[in-house]
Amino acid sequence: MTGLLTIVGLGPGDPRYLTPAASEALASATDIVGYGPYVDRVQDRPGLRRHASDNRVELDRARFALDLAANGARVAVVSGGDPGVFAMAAAVFEAVENGDPAWRGLDICVEPGITAMLAAAARVGAPIGGDFCAMSLSDNLKPWEVVEARLRAALAADFVVALYNPISSARPWQLGAAFTIASEIRSPGTPIILARAVGRRDERVRILPLAEAEASMADMSTMIIIGASTTRLIERIANQEPWVYTPRFYGIRP
Amino acid sequence: MTGLLTIVGLGPGDPRYLTPAASEALASATDIVGYGPYVDRVQDRPGLRRHASDNRVELDRARFALDLAANGARVAVVSGGDPGVFAMAAAVFEAVENGDPAWRGLDICVEPGITAMLAAAARVGAPIGGDFCAMSLSDNLKPWEVVEARLRAALAADFVVALYNPISSARPWQLGAAFTIASEIRSPGTPIILARAVGRRDERVRILPLAEAEASMADMSTMIIIGASTTRLIERIANQEPWVYTPRFYGIRP
Repeated sequence: MTGLLTIVGLGPGDPRYLTPAASEALASATDIVGYGPYVDRVQDRPGLRRHASDNRVELDRARFALDLAANGARVAVVSGGDPGVFAMAAAVFEAVENGDPAWRGLDICVEPGITAMLAAAARVGAPIGGDFCAMSLSDNLKPWEVVEARLRAALAADFVVALYNPISSARPWQLGAAFTIASEIRSPGTPIILARAVGRRDERVRILPLAEAEASMADMSTMIIIGASTTRLIERIANQEPWVYTPRFYGIRP
Repeated sequence: MTGLLTIVGLGPGDPRYLTPAASEALASATDIVGYGPYVDRVQDRPGLRRHASDNRVELDRARFALDLAANGARVAVVSGGDPGVFAMAAAVFEAVENGDPAWRGLDICVEPGITAMLAAAARVGAPIGGDFCAMSLSDNLKPWEVVEARLRAALAADFVVALYNPISSARPWQLGAAFTIASEIRSPGTPIILARAVGRRDERVRILPLAEAEASMADMSTMIIIGASTTRLIERIANQEPWVYTPRFYGIRP
C-alpha cells in the first residue's frame, strides 16, 4: 500500500503554536479528515479534499480516514491539541486493531502538538511544575466509579490534576462532583485554574481558590487545573493577575 | 521596568517541533540563558549574547536571567521540551517569589513546547490515550518515599505513567526500584516504552514487556512510559515494530 495517514496535532488554536512538522503534514496531504472546527483551521488550496464530520463519531471518522489511505491518499486526520491526549490517535489505532488487516501495512504517523494543559499552564506561570496527572472527566467511555477512584487517588497522592472534558450539556454534574471530591482532600485555598479556549480569540483564564470554584464557570472548551498542596500564588503589583506555580521541591527545602 | 523574560520550550530537539511562537521569542531576544546544550540549539546572530550554564544550577540561572531582564534586556531562558514540565519555568517563578520584589513587575512569559512524553508517545502510537500521570523519578528535590507513594498510587488507580529523569550516575537504583514496584501491581506483559532522545540524531525507541525491562536500558535522556492494564500492542506485518495504544474506553466496551 502506498497511502499515508498522519494524525496531526493542531495545538490549542493559535497558528503560532502549530509545529513546522504539523504544518508540513498538512501541506502535503491530499485529504483532511476531522471534526468540523478543526478541519476549518486548515488553510484551503486547490485540489485539497476536506472531510468534516460531527463530534463524537471518532471511530467512524478513523475508519473513513484509514480507508482513504488504503486507497492511496495522503490523509491528515486533524486533532485539537496533541492527538495522543484525549484526541484522535487512540481512535485511529482502535480502528486499526479491529479493522481490515491490510490497514496494519499502512504508514501511520502521529505529529505531536501543544495540548491544552501545557498551553493553559504556560498562561498562568508553572502550575504543573511538580508531578501531575491528566484525566478526562467524561464518563461516556469509562464508568464514573473509575473516574472518581482515579481522581481520589491522584489528589490523595498530591499530584497536580488537569481535567479534560470537564462538562457538557450531556454531562452537567460531573465537574461539580469533582470539585466536591477535591474539597474533601485539598484545602479551600488550593489554586484552581479555569482556562477557556487558550490561544483563541475568546480565551478566558481565571484563577481562584477551590472554595470559590463552581462548575458553572466552565464549558466544554475549558481546561481545569487543580493545584497540589504545594501550588502557590505569587502576588504582583498593581492590577495584574497573580502567577501560579508548583515548586520543584517537595518536603525538602533546598 | 522595560525588560522581558520569556521561558521558551525548545521541544525535544528536532527544529521541526519548535513552535513559531517559540522561534519568534528566540529571534527577538537580546540574551539567551540556559543549560549549555539547549543554548547551543539557538541559531547565532550578530549581537546575540549567549549565557550557557551547567545543569543543576537552575535557581542561580533563573536569578541571573531575572537580573538581566530587570536591567532592560529581552531575555529568553531556554528549556528542553516544555518549560512547565520538570524544566525551567518553576525555577524562574521560585526565584521570583523569593527574590527582589521588583522582579514581580517584570513581563514574564512562558512559551509552551512539545514535552518528551508527547514526542515519545507519538513515535509508537497512542500509549497515553487514556488517563495518565507524569512524574519525575528524581529524589533530589523530594524524598524517595514521596516518589514511591505517588508511583504506587498512580499504578494502583491504573493510570498510564510517564517517568521523567529516570536515572543518572548520581541516581543509579531508582528506576530499577520503580520497575520492581510496577511488577508488583501490573502484569508482566504490560508494555513499557523506553524512548531515548526522541527527535534527535541518536534517537532510540524500544517497546518491551515489563518483565524484560531493565534500568540499564535507560539513561538520563530516556523517557519511560509504563502502560495501564488496558494498554495494548498491535502487531504489524513483516519486521515492523508494533504500535502501542491505550483505548479511550475503560470497562465499557462501546
